[in-house]
Amino acid sequence: MIFIGEKINGTRSKVKEAVINRNIDYIQSLAISQSEAGADFLDINAGTDPDRETEDLIWLIEKVQAVTDTPICIDSSTPSAIKEALKVTRVTPMINSINGDQKRLEEFLPFIKERNCSVIALCLDESMSGMPKSIDDRMHVLENIFLATRAAGIEDSKVYIDPLIMSAATDQKAGIIAFDCIRTIRGKYPQAHITGGLSNISYGLPDRSLINRTFLTLAIAAGMDSAVVNPTDTDLIQSLFATELLLGKDKFCRRYTTASKNAFKKK
Amino acid sequence: MIFIGEKINGTRSKVKEAVINRNIDYIQSLAISQSEAGADFLDINAGTDPDRETEDLIWLIEKVQAVTDTPICIDSSTPSAIKEALKVTRVTPMINSINGDQKRLEEFLPFIKERNCSVIALCLDESMSGMPKSIDDRMHVLENIFLATRAAGIEDSKVYIDPLIMSAATDQKAGIIAFDCIRTIRGKYPQAHITGGLSNISYGLPDRSLINRTFLTLAIAAGMDSAVVNPTDTDLIQSLFATELLLGKDKFCRRYTTASKNAFKKK
Repeated sequence: MIFIGEKINGTRSKVKEAVINRNIDYIQSLAISQSEAGADFLDINAGTDPDRETEDLIWLIEKVQAVTDTPICIDSSTPSAIKEALKVTRVTPMINSINGDQKRLEEFLPFIKERNCSVIALCLDESMSGMPKSIDDRMHVLENIFLATRAAGIEDSKVYIDPLIMSAATDQKAGIIAFDCIRTIRGKYPQAHITGGLSNISYGLPDRSLINRTFLTLAIAAGMDSAVVNPTDTDLIQSLFATELLLGKDKFCRRYTTASKNAFKKK
Repeated sequence: MIFIGEKINGTRSKVKEAVINRNIDYIQSLAISQSEAGADFLDINAGTDPDRETEDLIWLIEKVQAVTDTPICIDSSTPSAIKEALKVTRVTPMINSINGDQKRLEEFLPFIKERNCSVIALCLDESMSGMPKSIDDRMHVLENIFLATRAAGIEDSKVYIDPLIMSAATDQKAGIIAFDCIRTIRGKYPQAHITGGLSNISYGLPDRSLINRTFLTLAIAAGMDSAVVNPTDTDLIQSLFATELLLGKDKFCRRYTTASKNAFKKK
């Protein structure tokens, strides 16, 4: 399971404040705690206005890289900001994100290929107003994305598909749609990764982390192999280890047993 | 989800002691706590020697029925003990259990039909030394069982199939086999229930209740609709509610939201 640590995100007010006030300690503490908990990538989203986003992104990446070697996941919708950020990353990063928008694909794919980055691909495009509705809608977008990534010489294994999980509070079938969608994607793109933010599913409901970790268990069984999460959530990590054990992915139950002794840290 | 409360079982030393010492308070407290937590049936197993089992079983049932109307699940391997116990049950009980053994089927089915009982059917027979090995072994036993129950006029919906869950500590594939088996049974016997003791899966491993509740989530997704459990295990009940919500079985998330307000009791 590949975890992308979600906490350094400027759309959260405390992080945005830290970015604006250049609060190095706060940002670095988020980087260290997520890395120690076993994050495979650290998502970094400045969340500030376009006129200062590039500068803030670079500041964040440099401060994070000063305390950890965990690869960065550059999270921005601005191609120029990503290009500049790429110049300061030490370890090959992940890009968050592309989607089925042709113009965006044309802009992003050349430098993704050049730097051999991994990339998150959202199952939506410019024809949609909001989120995709059906599984077919998502699969149609993915066809266009993989046509473009393959044409650009990017291996499927570099692509992290985000099926776009909806809230169960607004659509009772959100869970089933997500699991069916994950199974369909896994069947059609066996080499690609499947990721996504878990927390959408529980939006508007109480005891959200309970729903998130139960979702993770069912999503892994359906074929998900990555997630954008808070890796310091011990309950979530416990569920992950128990799920991998039950799905026969933990030889002699060694990882589970060791993790249990260490109070369930991911690493 | 139909829960069969597992706690009044004489193979547990504290319960056996209470049976032998006629400790009414202890037995009744187990009956009340499980019923209040939402048990649909209360399993009652005397666990004593054959020469006194019938008497103990009747004593247990009478004391339990004095404090709750929750139906009893009569748990014994002795047909005569079950027959006598049936005479004192107030509400139509469940019988635990039959298996593919022809002699046992011939003995049990007439009074199961006569009293319109539900019955737990284990996927093993006398040809097996120990647990069944493959899914095919289990399906073969079930064919014989359903041949007999249908011939006896017992509806499939009265049969609770126990696929016999093994320990993941001794067989890494125990979880996968269980889930595949549940899916196969669900496909072939859509009207029957699928139940089983959850705790076998975690035998010999640390943090057992974590594995049990994660197993429950995956088993429900595969088609399990009943379980022999401790219904007072709040973590388990939380997982159950979250799972049903995610599988689209909770209209407007009402049951989950209400349960959350009530600290996740099953009822």
